[in-house]
Order: sequence, then structure tokens, then C-alpha cells
Amino acid sequence: MTRIARRMADIQPFHVMEILKRAHALAAEGRDIIHLEVGEPDFPSPAPIVEAGRRFLTSGHVHYTPALGLTALREAIARFYHDRFGADVAPERIIVTPGASGALMLALGVLTDPGDEWLLPDPGYPSNRHLVRSFEGKPVALPVDATTRFQPTPAHVAAAWTPNTRGLMVASPANPTGTLLELDEIVALRDTVAARGGVLIVDEIYQGLNYGVEASTALSRADDVFVVNSFSKYFGMTGWRLGWMVVPEGYVRDIEKLAQHFFISPSTPAQHAALAAFEPGTLEILEARRHAFADRRNALLPALREIGFRFATEPQGAFYLYADISDIAASSEELAQRLIEEAGVATTPGVDFGDNAPERHLRIAYTTDEARLVEAAERIRRVL
Amino acid sequence: MTRIARRMADIQPFHVMEILKRAHALAAEGRDIIHLEVGEPDFPSPAPIVEAGRRFLTSGHVHYTPALGLTALREAIARFYHDRFGADVAPERIIVTPGASGALMLALGVLTDPGDEWLLPDPGYPSNRHLVRSFEGKPVALPVDATTRFQPTPAHVAAAWTPNTRGLMVASPANPTGTLLELDEIVALRDTVAARGGVLIVDEIYQGLNYGVEASTALSRADDVFVVNSFSKYFGMTGWRLGWMVVPEGYVRDIEKLAQHFFISPSTPAQHAALAAFEPGTLEILEARRHAFADRRNALLPALREIGFRFATEPQGAFYLYADISDIAASSEELAQRLIEEAGVATTPGVDFGDNAPERHLRIAYTTDEARLVEAAERIRRVL
Ligand SMILES: Cc1ncc(COP(=O)(O)O)c(C=O)c1O
Ligand SMILES: Cc1ncc(COP(=O)(O)O)c(C=O)c1O
Repeated sequence: MTRIARRMADIQPFHVMEILKRAHALAAEGRDIIHLEVGEPDFPSPAPIVEAGRRFLTSGHVHYTPALGLTALREAIARFYHDRFGADVAPERIIVTPGASGALMLALGVLTDPGDEWLLPDPGYPSNRHLVRSFEGKPVALPVDATTRFQPTPAHVAAAWTPNTRGLMVASPANPTGTLLELDEIVALRDTVAARGGVLIVDEIYQGLNYGVEASTALSRADDVFVVNSFSKYFGMTGWRLGWMVVPEGYVRDIEKLAQHFFISPSTPAQHAALAAFEPGTLEILEARRHAFADRRNALLPALREIGFRFATEPQGAFYLYADISDIAASSEELAQRLIEEAGVATTPGVDFGDNAPERHLRIAYTTDEARLVEAAERIRRVL
Repeated sequence: MTRIARRMADIQPFHVMEILKRAHALAAEGRDIIHLEVGEPDFPSPAPIVEAGRRFLTSGHVHYTPALGLTALREAIARFYHDRFGADVAPERIIVTPGASGALMLALGVLTDPGDEWLLPDPGYPSNRHLVRSFEGKPVALPVDATTRFQPTPAHVAAAWTPNTRGLMVASPANPTGTLLELDEIVALRDTVAARGGVLIVDEIYQGLNYGVEASTALSRADDVFVVNSFSKYFGMTGWRLGWMVVPEGYVRDIEKLAQHFFISPSTPAQHAALAAFEPGTLEILEARRHAFADRRNALLPALREIGFRFATEPQGAFYLYADISDIAASSEELAQRLIEEAGVATTPGVDFGDNAPERHLRIAYTTDEARLVEAAERIRRVL
């Protein structure tokens, strides 16, 4: 073997895959495993979306599309911003991508010079720091905790900013914590970043999965931010690999160039299926699912608290609970191991999400039905 | 707007998109346009593939797959190498990707340090040099011409090698020239590269589209090369966005890490559809198409020669003819413009493929049926 690029020494795998592997091994032995580690909805893609996909396939003509996506889909996304959020977004600013993953690659590829620093809240979505590193940027962790709902503040940003800082990435609702930023807070972060000549990337992939608060978009208050989104989570389309990004107009042409070479175009069947994502019938299904997620959350959260898991801030979005387990165990990795082995419950230890007290935190996803969640809590209680 | 990454100054768009736009505009005015610029089969995806995709969708359960792809698909690809080429490739070395594009990103991402040089034949597939640049590598053009069938030789490689050279990328059959490398030539290139501690990437995306010669794979003679492939071309699945790569075993784990963050996983419907790609019924359809491509080539090549297009080397693969137009016009860009405006025939000028005499070359794709090809040649004849 010849040498491997230096960046690979800094790029970590998804550690949860080890838990997943163990879960599969135990299941193969006949053990009943409850999956609370999975970061995707357990629901099938909504029937109208599936039907649109199947209908499109009938002709068999599955060719490349324009690199930025089908015009009809970009227009449908623009209408969705208007109808649901009252936000006016020109379709020309909407880039259809292979998932939010593809959007993040394009944003970072077009913005990041070697040595550029990106501020990333820690804990946060693991891929962000690895994508920054992939383009030779430098991920800089902003440690955040329950006192600011695990979200960065202008003070965090100001304190961490250096002449090399390129910008800030946030997510609302966030993974792994499920917490939101209010629009005023996003505007304040944008102002802080813009005053320093930087860029704010807002990952809204869990948009629509919010409980007790209204869904929102940064775009209703700012058009100089990069907004990342996806059909994966709220729309229940993970495996289709389709997302989008809204960017300031001046960046579109450069992103198009990069998209041509990175991806040629996003999946054609997925784009045609997604045309059905914004139909009233589909949105009705999705809202019913949102209520189911809320019910799950409302069942699981108190049950876990009773066992000794702590949530200093109540998550109001996504489908994750980020528990402080320091009253129960010294190490979240050991706890996760114990839970999978002794309770048959798979969870994600904090190590995947950064370096900020990962041993004290466990991510629990309510991507399985309520009865199973209740059983999982009961099994955990018995083990602990 | 804030600053854009420096790499963007070096990254060019697909210039042919301008021709395509003009073609659409003319068509909208009612003009009949013959498309000889398109780099994808005009055929629909084969019915068994489409049916497998539609069948899979029925349940609606379209979730993420493992980052390296479905085990069943990796095994099916391994069997295909064995059955068709007698090559033994362990499924564990096969990485399923979002198109050959995704495979090229992973290969270059895992191999390229900033400043690393990659040797790329010029003319060649445009994205290669831009992907190298995206990871802060340095694309180094190897000018090649008809005297070596537009393919690099060990002498080219040896002469261009520097202490910073990381490796060589070749394609067989190649885009835009349609020429092949023989297995002995690939082995000689591999030896030249390996002796210098470098890596050879062989892009076999047009494998199976060969006329008058047998299809082959570098894998039947070497297991220390990176072999890129795709369901896009021979298998007629461009819009599904699915490809694969075979890598030396020691690289698999690092590539898996990168794939998790770049893509999470390849398209799930595409993977299930592709499971039908190697069935005897599908291969029968594909072989019939190969014969149709051969007939097209055999009709178009002499017709173009008669008009004055020169082909010093006969292309034997892919679906491209790379014509020397210096007997007809001074500039391929002007000629392409004239052909679209006056003959209603869209072609791709050499500028997309590099800096090596692009003004003297035009790429003509026979991705349209024989009658239309004959008409295109006739229209061109009349104009010239
Ligand atoms: C915060 C966040 N951003 C982006 C992604 C990427 O998702 P996808 O590429 O499926 O849209 C994820 C997936 O879990 C995520 O949690
Ligand atoms: C030589 C070559 N490599 C790779 C690709 C990428 O194709 P895909 O990503 O559809 O597999 C192409 C597409 O035209 C090509 O010509």
C-alpha cells in the first residue's frame, strides 16, 4: 500500500456503526433488539411520494437532469417556502442536491480555502467537521451545553473568531440535542458573523419536526445565509438521497460548477418522487407523523427522567434526546455497551458528536414506535 | 458577497451546457435539433432493472443502506467480474457509490494531499482535473494524440513524474476519444506508476461498450489498482446515480469513513434496481444495445470522414467520436456554433476536455438512433 492522504488521520467513522454491528449480531442470535440509535424515521416514505416515484419509472427514461435539479422541483420548493413560512425565495437560488450531505459538500467546497476555520457547535452532527477537513479547512469546536440549549451564542462566536475564521455552522433543530434556535437568535448570529466578513450556514434538515413550537426558516429573516435542507427526515425519504440548499444569488454559478463535477446531477427518480412531497395529501401524512413523534417524545422523556437520565434543557425538535447520564454511569460508551448487551437496547454514545463531555452523554432516538419505546425504558430501568 | 474559495477560479463548468441551452432555445422556436453532444445512452433503463426498482419501492421502506452499499449488490458485482471476465474480486473490496463521480471523489479524497500531482491524459474526462483540484491536488496534463490512440504510455508517465506525483488516471474506453488500452498496456502503466510509489486509477465506466474488440478489466491482471465503474453507461442507468469502485483491500476502511460523511449511502432504490443488472435477461438487452451502438458507429464514422472529419485512430469503445476538424474549420467552438445554428446539430467542442489542441477537435456522440445520425451527417454536409 502507498500512503493515504493526511486528512484521513483526522476523519473519524460513525462510531455508532459498531453498536449497530453488535445489534445485528445479537439479533442474529435471536435476541430482540430495540433500536434507539438510528437517525432516520422508521416510517416508510409517504405513499404519494412512492407512487410518484413508481409512476415516473414506468417509462424507464431515467436520464441525467440539470446539475442544479429539475426546474419544477426548484419551483415547488420555492412555493413551499412561500406557503408554509411566508418566505420569498427565488427558485434560481435553490440547489437540489444528493441529500443535505451533498449540500454541505457544495457549501464547504465553494467557501473553504486551506486553513480556513469553521466554527462548529460541539456536540454537533459529526460529518460537518469531517467535511470541513476534507476541503483542508480547520474545524473549530464551540463547546456548548444545556445553559444555552446546546446552541452557540454571539458571545461564543465573537470569542472564537480569528482572522482565519470563514464562518459558523448551526443546525436548528439540532442533531444530537434536538434543540432549536429562535429566529431572533439566528439573526443575531448572522449579524455577528456578517460583521466579521464571514458566512452563516444554517442546517434546517429537521425542519418540520418540532413539538410545542412552530416550524420556521432562517430564510424568512435573512437572505445572505446558506440554508441546508433535505427530504430525508421530515419527508421520510432518507434512502432516496435528496436534499437542497438555498444560497445567496452570487454563489449559484460557482456551486453549479462544483455540482457538475461532484455529482453530475441528483437522483432523477428521487426528484420526480419529491415533486409529490409538498402536495396537501402528503403534508397531511407528514403532520400525522409529527404528532406521533411528539407522542413518542412525551412518553419517553419522563420515563427516562425517572430512571435517572437528565435533560437540563427540553429538546423540542428532531427525534433525538441527548441525555446527561452522569448520575447513572461514568462513561456513555460503557453504558451504551451495557444497554445493548444486557437490555437489548441500542443507543449512540456522545463520542460521535465531538469532544465536549461525550462520556457524559448518550443520544436516544425515538425512531421506533411508542410501545417499543416504553418497553425500552422499562428494560433499561431493570438493568440499571 | 464574501470571498469564494480559490479553487473555484480553476474549476470550469461543462462548456457543452451552453450548446445544450442553445439547442433547447432553438427547439423551443420549433427547430428540429439532433443531439450529438449528449454523454448518455438514449435508451431507457432496461425493463428488468426498472421493474426491480418499482418492485422494491412498493413497500415504501426506502432507508439508508450501509455506506459501502448493500452486501447483495457487492456480491453481485463480484460474481459479474468472475463470470464475465474470469476476475476474482472479493466483495469486500467493492465500494458502491453515487455514480463513477462518487467513486472518483472517494478515490481522490483518500489519496490526495495538498500539492500532490495527478497525471491526466489530455484530452480526458473534464471532471477529473476539477476533482483533483477540489482536494487541493494539482492536475498535470499529459498531452496525448492519435499516435498513441490518445492514451498515455509509460514513457509519457516517466517523463512527467516528479517527487510530488501521486499517480495516474486513465480511462478505457476513454471519453472523449472512445479509444481503449490493452491489458498489457495497463499492466505496463501500472508497473511504471508502482515503481515510483504511485497509484493507478483505471476508469472503466464505458466497459462493455466496445466494438470489434473484447471487453476487459484491469482487475484480471492487477489488484493493486483503483478501478472505477458505473451503472450509468453500459447498464443505461445514468439518472439513478449509481456506480462502484474496486480498491486494494488496505484502503477500504478509509474509503468507508469518507463515504459515510460525503454520501451517508448510495441511493437505495438504485441499488435494488441494479441487483437486476446482471441477470441474463438484462445482459441480453444490453448486448443488443451494444450491437446497435456498433451499427451507429459504423454508419456515422465513414459518413463523417467523407465530409472531411479526420480520425487518425479508430475509436473502438464508448459512444464517442473525437474528430480532428482542422480540414474543415479553424475553431471547433465556431464550428459547433455553426452546426447548431445552421444544421440544427449539437456537438461538443474540444474545450471541455483540456488544453491539448481543443480548437482542432469536436466530440460527436452517437447517442441517438441510426436514422437521425445519417440525417445529421447529411445536414452537416450541406452546411459545410
Ligand atoms: C444535522 C444533519 N445534517 C445533515 C444530515 C445529512 O442527511 P441527508 O444527507 O440524508 O440529507 C444529517 C443526517 O443525519 C443530520 O443529522
Ligand atoms: C470517463 C467518465 N468517468 C466518469 C463519469 C461519471 O459518470 P457517472 O457519475 O454517471 O457514473 C463519466 C460521465 O460521463 C465519464 O465519461
